[in-house]
Amino acid sequence: MEAVQISPTSGKGLNLEILFSTAERWKLLPTPEMRLVALTEAMLLKGARDYLMENGFIEIVAPHITKATGACENIATMFELSYFGQRAYLSQTGQLYLEAMAMFLGKVWTVIQSFRAEPVADDRHLAEFTLIELEFLGGLEELLSHIEGIITRMVREALKLEDEYRRAGVDVGRLYEVKPPFERITYTEAVELLSDMGVRWGDDLKSVHEKAIVERLGGRPVLVTHYPKEIKFFNMRENDENPEIVNSVDLLLPFSGEAVGGAEREYRYERLLKRLLESQMLKMLIERGGSVEDFDWYLNIYKTFGGRLHSGCGIGLNRVTQFVLGLSDIRGTTIFPLNRESLM
Amino acid sequence: MEAVQISPTSGKGLNLEILFSTAERWKLLPTPEMRLVALTEAMLLKGARDYLMENGFIEIVAPHITKATGACENIATMFELSYFGQRAYLSQTGQLYLEAMAMFLGKVWTVIQSFRAEPVADDRHLAEFTLIELEFLGGLEELLSHIEGIITRMVREALKLEDEYRRAGVDVGRLYEVKPPFERITYTEAVELLSDMGVRWGDDLKSVHEKAIVERLGGRPVLVTHYPKEIKFFNMRENDENPEIVNSVDLLLPFSGEAVGGAEREYRYERLLKRLLESQMLKMLIERGGSVEDFDWYLNIYKTFGGRLHSGCGIGLNRVTQFVLGLSDIRGTTIFPLNRESLM
Repeated sequence: MEAVQISPTSGKGLNLEILFSTAERWKLLPTPEMRLVALTEAMLLKGARDYLMENGFIEIVAPHITKATGACENIATMFELSYFGQRAYLSQTGQLYLEAMAMFLGKVWTVIQSFRAEPVADDRHLAEFTLIELEFLGGLEELLSHIEGIITRMVREALKLEDEYRRAGVDVGRLYEVKPPFERITYTEAVELLSDMGVRWGDDLKSVHEKAIVERLGGRPVLVTHYPKEIKFFNMRENDENPEIVNSVDLLLPFSGEAVGGAEREYRYERLLKRLLESQMLKMLIERGGSVEDFDWYLNIYKTFGGRLHSGCGIGLNRVTQFVLGLSDIRGTTIFPLNRESLM
Repeated sequence: MEAVQISPTSGKGLNLEILFSTAERWKLLPTPEMRLVALTEAMLLKGARDYLMENGFIEIVAPHITKATGACENIATMFELSYFGQRAYLSQTGQLYLEAMAMFLGKVWTVIQSFRAEPVADDRHLAEFTLIELEFLGGLEELLSHIEGIITRMVREALKLEDEYRRAGVDVGRLYEVKPPFERITYTEAVELLSDMGVRWGDDLKSVHEKAIVERLGGRPVLVTHYPKEIKFFNMRENDENPEIVNSVDLLLPFSGEAVGGAEREYRYERLLKRLLESQMLKMLIERGGSVEDFDWYLNIYKTFGGRLHSGCGIGLNRVTQFVLGLSDIRGTTIFPLNRESLM
């Protein structure tokens, strides 16, 4: 397939680039540009919820002040706070809480705010963003299908703004092309695809690599599966045939790159414990003064009640908004974007 | 009207009281009691969203790490954190952010997590809870109607669990009685109603008083309007005829007491600034080391773009859940309740 050059929203009618600035954000609130972003976020959230509820997922409320069980693999970016004198964190993911309930309710979802103390204010990261998370009893194939389904539904819902998008100069045709099945490649295939860029097996994919994968596969959403175990979250389930990889998936989108991350989860207590104790994440947590005991409640569930194969993912709303609107900067994807330079 | 004694859910089928304990919460996750609470929360959230979307409200995402503009009147309970070296707070309300956008979008809503560093772990307060907030261009009468509408819709949605409620021993008849118009009294009338309890005009109503009001008015939801200005949030709009009171409303529910708080908002810049500068809240903020400058962005909007009459409210989801399930303890209203003794 031919590499496709993706050009950002032209701004024929509106200039969405005014939203890339966080300085004096309040001045931008009355603009039609801000209105379009607000409506887009609302439609995307509605599309996601409609998909989840129609597919039998039950909404649960996950805590936002947590023990270390609210951390994702990127533990260096956790915000800490004193919680009545006790060390606590701001949630980065509700995954472990969803996992616990998926085992008893079957299919669950939540929308949380995910907090990341990103060291630099750039066009790719926010310090707080909206994360749509789902978890269910089942495996990777079903997960891929849910990701295709929910993203398609979100984009379809946003397309109710088609007339406004056309007036604003947003490329609507690109959005109509979003439908299952998405392009799928394995991480190993992706590394081959990027051999001219010096990517080696075992490396994490940087944003420039994600961009190249998307462009080289036609400029549409791409599901990249089966990443190396070493660079992923401790409880991603090992592939039965090749324990060096996990049954994981990242969804890459034009403009924004990784918008969804998910996987099958390890559910056998002994292995889970071993994976946790050997994880880079735990090492970093302990270096920061955190404690493995934070994981007791989570491990106790598997130890006491047993586990069943389950899978889930988190969808970064702002990355989807960025894709839909064709924005080169994530600061333009929400009304009140937070990074180290902006707080309102 | 005769005083009605309200008895808690009998627990014929299920014992919902097991959920009042936060110790080893993980052990409770597989129980049918927890399942019923989870489903109830999900239904109540869906009912609220359906009402808001059908009535033309637009969802916006409000920040959860904020300046002091994320504080409610109870500023002593703000969680603080270091935000890249800067003082920041965890949101208690998205109200001021919603107000800003209501002025430009007309009708907006959000669901946030509200954080309160409640000094004691008791049966009435959580340190983190779900808050459904709405804001629109319009006045108190319309607000009362929206509160009646959304609460009725939430309860109707929960009643889809009627069969499960009956099996669990939840009094369903009480829920069918929830419909507009709700009982309405003014704060001044409430004080008269409670004269035998030593309540004087100007006092805030304590939970025992809220309970007595509900019982003495028939054991159903009661809207209490027009509180004294002194004890309420700085931007609640003064009543035109009596500037000692504000055009505010609290909704009191059986079992849980105050479940909704709302008001018309002051929208004239000079008055708003004056009210802020004279407020008890600001005094407390500055004593804590906070800054009035945190309100600059918010004041700038009124100063620069002008304001229009708008109103809004926040609905404490857990208080509604407590009412629906007939629980005597708010710790039973959600899967992962947080207070100073519990963190997961």
